[in-house]
Amino acid sequence: MAPYHPVREQMEIETVLAALGNPIRMAIVRALSAGGPDGLACGTIDIGVSKATATHHWRVLREAGVIRQWQVGRAHFVALRREDVEARFPGLLAAALNAGPATVAP
Amino acid sequence: MAPYHPVREQMEIETVLAALGNPIRMAIVRALSAGGPDGLACGTIDIGVSKATATHHWRVLREAGVIRQWQVGRAHFVALRREDVEARFPGLLAAALNAGPATVAP
Repeated sequence: MAPYHPVREQMEIETVLAALGNPIRMAIVRALSAGGPDGLACGTIDIGVSKATATHHWRVLREAGVIRQWQVGRAHFVALRREDVEARFPGLLAAALNAGPATVAP
Repeated sequence: MAPYHPVREQMEIETVLAALGNPIRMAIVRALSAGGPDGLACGTIDIGVSKATATHHWRVLREAGVIRQWQVGRAHFVALRREDVEARFPGLLAAALNAGPATVAP
């Protein structure tokens, strides 16, 4: 069975914000954004966590509508749904991706 | 002791996204946005939850840098830190506030 991917009209702002509101998931989104529109093999994105943890974060991003995951043979791929997120929530992804790090220790 | 408010440079994108990524907190932010720049008395914002729950959500928003809370005598006030969030993460708050509801049941 194909994993759940919401269509644009199902995407909810709170769910997308919550999906992005995590350092590991933002690192994934930054890596995918830099990786171009064709997506990346899941295994090529090293986020420094266990496979179970990585699977959790992929799922949160996918179920929010931020990424798309698919399989070709035994290889798993992932891509940022940049156009879908932009169409649904204009400016949001750019604002999140353009944010620089904090410059004063909290 | 005054409650903690991060300065602009301490605000982190993941923390702000996580703070906004909750239906009750987005409802608060929408109410404050509609309320104008001078803020509102905390008691005038009815978010339909217990006082303890409301206090939790105020705190998450305040510690992320999204709202400011202050006291005058025994009255508590709250305001959206619109200029600070905009200066730190341009376009983010507008993108979150402009988002419409989902139009297809999930």
